[in-house]
Amino acid sequence: MPVYKEMSKEELLQEKTALEAKFEEIKARNLKLDMTRGKPSAAQLDLAMGMMDVLNSSTDLKCEAGVDCRNYGILDGIDEAKELLADMTEVSKDNIIIYGNSSLNIMYDTVSRSVTHGVMGSTPWCKLDQPVKFLCPVPGYDRHFAITEHFGIDMINIPMTTTGPDMDLVEQYVNNDPMVKGIWCVPKYSNPQGLTYSDETVRRFARLKPAAEDFRIYWDNAYGVHHLYDDKQDNLVEILMECKKEGHPDMVFKFCSTSKVSFPGSGVAAIGASKANLEYIKKQMTIQTIGHDKLNQLRHVRYFKDIHGMVLHMRKHAEILRPKFEMVLNGLERELGDKEIGTWINPRGGYFISFDSLPGCAKAIVAKAKEAGLVMTAAGATFPYGKDPLDSNIRIAPSYPTLEELEVATEIFVLSVKLVSIDKILAEKE
Amino acid sequence: MPVYKEMSKEELLQEKTALEAKFEEIKARNLKLDMTRGKPSAAQLDLAMGMMDVLNSSTDLKCEAGVDCRNYGILDGIDEAKELLADMTEVSKDNIIIYGNSSLNIMYDTVSRSVTHGVMGSTPWCKLDQPVKFLCPVPGYDRHFAITEHFGIDMINIPMTTTGPDMDLVEQYVNNDPMVKGIWCVPKYSNPQGLTYSDETVRRFARLKPAAEDFRIYWDNAYGVHHLYDDKQDNLVEILMECKKEGHPDMVFKFCSTSKVSFPGSGVAAIGASKANLEYIKKQMTIQTIGHDKLNQLRHVRYFKDIHGMVLHMRKHAEILRPKFEMVLNGLERELGDKEIGTWINPRGGYFISFDSLPGCAKAIVAKAKEAGLVMTAAGATFPYGKDPLDSNIRIAPSYPTLEELEVATEIFVLSVKLVSIDKILAEKE
Repeated sequence: MPVYKEMSKEELLQEKTALEAKFEEIKARNLKLDMTRGKPSAAQLDLAMGMMDVLNSSTDLKCEAGVDCRNYGILDGIDEAKELLADMTEVSKDNIIIYGNSSLNIMYDTVSRSVTHGVMGSTPWCKLDQPVKFLCPVPGYDRHFAITEHFGIDMINIPMTTTGPDMDLVEQYVNNDPMVKGIWCVPKYSNPQGLTYSDETVRRFARLKPAAEDFRIYWDNAYGVHHLYDDKQDNLVEILMECKKEGHPDMVFKFCSTSKVSFPGSGVAAIGASKANLEYIKKQMTIQTIGHDKLNQLRHVRYFKDIHGMVLHMRKHAEILRPKFEMVLNGLERELGDKEIGTWINPRGGYFISFDSLPGCAKAIVAKAKEAGLVMTAAGATFPYGKDPLDSNIRIAPSYPTLEELEVATEIFVLSVKLVSIDKILAEKE
Repeated sequence: MPVYKEMSKEELLQEKTALEAKFEEIKARNLKLDMTRGKPSAAQLDLAMGMMDVLNSSTDLKCEAGVDCRNYGILDGIDEAKELLADMTEVSKDNIIIYGNSSLNIMYDTVSRSVTHGVMGSTPWCKLDQPVKFLCPVPGYDRHFAITEHFGIDMINIPMTTTGPDMDLVEQYVNNDPMVKGIWCVPKYSNPQGLTYSDETVRRFARLKPAAEDFRIYWDNAYGVHHLYDDKQDNLVEILMECKKEGHPDMVFKFCSTSKVSFPGSGVAAIGASKANLEYIKKQMTIQTIGHDKLNQLRHVRYFKDIHGMVLHMRKHAEILRPKFEMVLNGLERELGDKEIGTWINPRGGYFISFDSLPGCAKAIVAKAKEAGLVMTAAGATFPYGKDPLDSNIRIAPSYPTLEELEVATEIFVLSVKLVSIDKILAEKE
């Protein structure tokens, strides 16, 4: 089968008829398939069920410091939880604060605090005459963009390359525009592309000379321990140390959580940063809360024991996720590999596969898939304001469905891509 | 023994010498007694240990709606948790949002959101030319005042009466000054006085005609179910319904949590308000988090079952707290009842006893007690900016120490009150 663009109108119409027949046949099955979000499957959640047993009514509920975890006290997390999440974040125990269940909530609070109180003594963003700007590597994570949009922050698209964001552009903006106060990064197994920033990209980040004193890198290392393979792992240079080496340790906020390690919604989240940043944050935090859930911190530490325990646990996640990713990737390769109607990247970790269709086709593909009962992330969601300028990026989330469901989901997806692409090519031939 | 003021200088000096001897004797014991905060005792926490067992690895972790509580989903709380906390807050299930572990955090977020985004469409407070004002019934809760101070909100003292805040003053401010955007209330077993707002006070609140459309009553019903007695319970009129009857259901935010019901730090907190308020809040909440800890919500519901279960549980708390309150109150009555050097109120619930010394003595009394190893809440803490204009209010927190500790703590306290008061009376006689 030649590439679609080289086929005649008649050949394309013939192909379309055959594909439509297959599509109608699947549609008639009235399926309900959900690939909208990066949700772990029930089988993955089952992996951590032992966590429900580590604390019970006869357990000693004191942390190592001797504090009763059932009572008030300890604003920034129990020591052993700090150690676990510091190891996970690859920073020192002194460079971490434990929060509640959600790293998104920490990011929101971090931006919110900057709006009302500034960053380490800078002018609160709400008191500035001009709007604050954030750089947004695209495609990226919709919930990041939603936070900055919510606070009226102008978002600037920065194209992703295979080594991370276009650093020429990042440097140009950050080093010259004092209104650029931040950049959203998912540096490892990025959402949605599964790309990991190269060593040189991280070092260029650390060498930034921001025009704004309150510029921060919002380093959401959501998938730091979420490898798909034991033998093929991406490596990410640790940015806090790089920033320290370059003489500005305060330039980065690191975020992480155990949401996709233990239980989404019932995990533990943390921020990693320089001591100066953390001191400033704690001044606000002590107004906001008496402390987060120490029993849940204890539950996590007693269950995983240490970072090695977590690494072993993540291997079990990989065993469940790997075949799912391979199912989708093999399907894409088999059905679309020779058609020149879409490109994608084979990720080595994370939760997503990013697919780029022919320009102007993404919304139509997602709509087409929905006709057959497959709900995907809305096209455009991977861009600020939900606006993909090329209308081509689609985020595929293979984690939640079963393998059986994924097989048919992949079939629906490639059929949708083919049908919409043929229509586009036919229209262009008119 | 006559009242101190009527004693001669010689009699006072003689009394002082005797008291100092007693004080030195206690001081020599090198005690460490903590009455700074309203912390439940270990015995109280033990009451809820069964909660550590209700969820385990063989439990069905789906909520009534069939959602797997281990996974993402459900922004505003599982239905059964809504029912439990709605009953606790005395509102309908439709009028509640479940948050994380801390009602303080909800209050902070509520003020923070008003600063950055306004209240139900009003101008964000950070965009106003004049500073926002909050009314603060005094004495009150220091952490409330810390939130408003943190956001640069001007705080206005409103004296408490035995029926609640001085409502003439409240009406005067709220109905005439559009910069008055809120009032902090602990309406039942108030912190620190243990007073409950009278029916007429609640109705006058509901009949307020605020000059500001975005004025809200911040109704922190922290001690709603925290009775000390079965047969002598205060009753508080439910304010959301009263506001509804008066035609402005949007005027109140109610806050509650299970921090002093189950475990402080590992409880569940909620906001109760009109649907219009909740819809506005949810628009922001969906940016801030994917959802709070549903497993902990489930844990609470499975343990308490319903509001009746919670009421029975709170009786057990009362059995532990009641003798402690009575120990302190009896000590005050026995040692200070006839001295005219201090007044206090016998509360029927809550966590505190509020003591008013002779003017200008509170700081000195707290400092004196500390000499003998008894750490109390800092004098002044019960007033905005930590400034008690009369320097007379002291918050006594009897919950945390054991009965044995409380006996000596009470002795230290009354000795400190007597010694400082004698010095003051002597100075006045000079």
